[in-house]
Amino acid sequence: MCSLPVPREPLRRVAVTGGTHGNEMSGVYLARHWLQAPGDLQRPSFSATPVLANPAAAAACRRYMDRDLNRTFTSTFLTTKATPDDPYEVTRARELNQLLGPKASGQAFDFILDLHNTTANMGTCLIADSAHNVFAMHLCHHLQLQNPELSCRVFLYQQPGEESYAVHSVAKNGIGLELGPQPQGVLRADIFSRMRALVAAALDFIELFNQGVACPAFEVEAYRIAGTVDFPRTKDGDLAGTVHPRLQDRDFEPLQPGAPIFQMFSGEDVLYEGESTVSPVFINEAAYYEKGIAFIQAEKLTFSVPALPSLTPTPTPVP
Amino acid sequence: MCSLPVPREPLRRVAVTGGTHGNEMSGVYLARHWLQAPGDLQRPSFSATPVLANPAAAAACRRYMDRDLNRTFTSTFLTTKATPDDPYEVTRARELNQLLGPKASGQAFDFILDLHNTTANMGTCLIADSAHNVFAMHLCHHLQLQNPELSCRVFLYQQPGEESYAVHSVAKNGIGLELGPQPQGVLRADIFSRMRALVAAALDFIELFNQGVACPAFEVEAYRIAGTVDFPRTKDGDLAGTVHPRLQDRDFEPLQPGAPIFQMFSGEDVLYEGESTVSPVFINEAAYYEKGIAFIQAEKLTFSVPALPSLTPTPTPVP
Repeated sequence: MCSLPVPREPLRRVAVTGGTHGNEMSGVYLARHWLQAPGDLQRPSFSATPVLANPAAAAACRRYMDRDLNRTFTSTFLTTKATPDDPYEVTRARELNQLLGPKASGQAFDFILDLHNTTANMGTCLIADSAHNVFAMHLCHHLQLQNPELSCRVFLYQQPGEESYAVHSVAKNGIGLELGPQPQGVLRADIFSRMRALVAAALDFIELFNQGVACPAFEVEAYRIAGTVDFPRTKDGDLAGTVHPRLQDRDFEPLQPGAPIFQMFSGEDVLYEGESTVSPVFINEAAYYEKGIAFIQAEKLTFSVPALPSLTPTPTPVP
Repeated sequence: MCSLPVPREPLRRVAVTGGTHGNEMSGVYLARHWLQAPGDLQRPSFSATPVLANPAAAAACRRYMDRDLNRTFTSTFLTTKATPDDPYEVTRARELNQLLGPKASGQAFDFILDLHNTTANMGTCLIADSAHNVFAMHLCHHLQLQNPELSCRVFLYQQPGEESYAVHSVAKNGIGLELGPQPQGVLRADIFSRMRALVAAALDFIELFNQGVACPAFEVEAYRIAGTVDFPRTKDGDLAGTVHPRLQDRDFEPLQPGAPIFQMFSGEDVLYEGESTVSPVFINEAAYYEKGIAFIQAEKLTFSVPALPSLTPTPTPVP
């Protein structure tokens, strides 16, 4: 497995983005809090920048105004000439690309930590684009080691050949934190505290790296997308049933062929017809109804992550 | 305690309304299902009418488009002359008042059962306007006896001297079913099945009454509103903290003076300063943030409900 280059300089330009989806309240309120009181985000070698990513959607307590901001950081949206009729999130993605990027440029931020909630029973999930990102994998590993009680799972969301589209893809490195279950529009203290502690631990890891700490190679277990499954629907496209009680809340547990996945309104069960055992994730996530996703089929994999070498002091240039 | 008159005729015009709030999915999908397949709603003496109360909000998966429909059935909204600029829900309330009312008239429906979900851990809650409504109290008692495992609680929402404003107030009798916890925009099979079974039991009770069954007097325990408590807020009106982990999910459990109710983002706890023990309900309900309600303080009361006499056959009029 090829690896992306690891940082050769300290990470000094770090952003923590909340409210990318305006009704995922942990990130909305952490970002608002830190914009007033940024003390949590300061470390000796850097101060992370808090960003309320989608302020209009946060004000309206909606996921988005016109389109999903976290699917809008592609070159098509970021580089097309602006017009007055652009959807709000396209305009906002360009603003964030100016503030935190430009994406894929040398001027981009070093790291973005993007905060999310899900209505699914996902616990603590660390979302990275791919296993090739060695720095992100070491950060995830650090969070796992620091929080053994949380069973932090690593989910790789990017499919082969697919362009990255999430807000954290604007920076040179980044991950998303996905904590659940929490209803849209509700701020639970337990999840708020957990997210705050995870952000602190992530910034601590960046500080350790900046101070020259090296990290040895390790083996990691992760999940990656194998497919999606839609709800059963009527001929008009409306729901004809919903997630079966025996699947509901069982994110990351093995789903075997023949197990019930849906309960129809007419009463009968729908069984899983896949050929092999998968790990369902984002089961019955509110925001995915409109995307035609009742759950994502993930496959579990284990792979080796190479060592993260210590930063070597930059030699003083000879005049 | 004075009692409202009990029905003297069989209840034949019965409606089951779902989607009064368009993101409370149990009622939205039960109404949609019954509009296609109304078999569940048929009894020997009547067939209940399914109604998707707020179709625009249900299509958008939002609580409402312009204003809360379930606060719009007051005489001011129902009787003011219509204009093209009326909020969507005002227009819709008038339509429902034509279909199911007019409110407080002899032509009104006999009964409305209105279906709701909450993000709070309310379990199964039966919402009636007041204890004076003998028929509604007997229906609630029947649901309690039929479903002892559900601990159905009775909540009296109308405050003294307050005009009724809910959709079920359009009919001569009515109650709301409030089931939770369920996130907005999510359809959980367990809650869907529970709501469906409760609707069936409610219709069975109406059928029993229509068949001439009498019900003896009984004592009932219920909760009624004693006040509301807002979140702690900044000087700009934004949240400064959220519901304390020791209060979260403890709807209907006694809250004593001095117990923690909020956890501030700055870290400290806010304690309950009331003078007596109350029962908090609708704790951390998503839809109530904008209403300035972190939870409702309810007081528990026990009262007697008089017998519900059997319907006597109407004498054939002498020509």
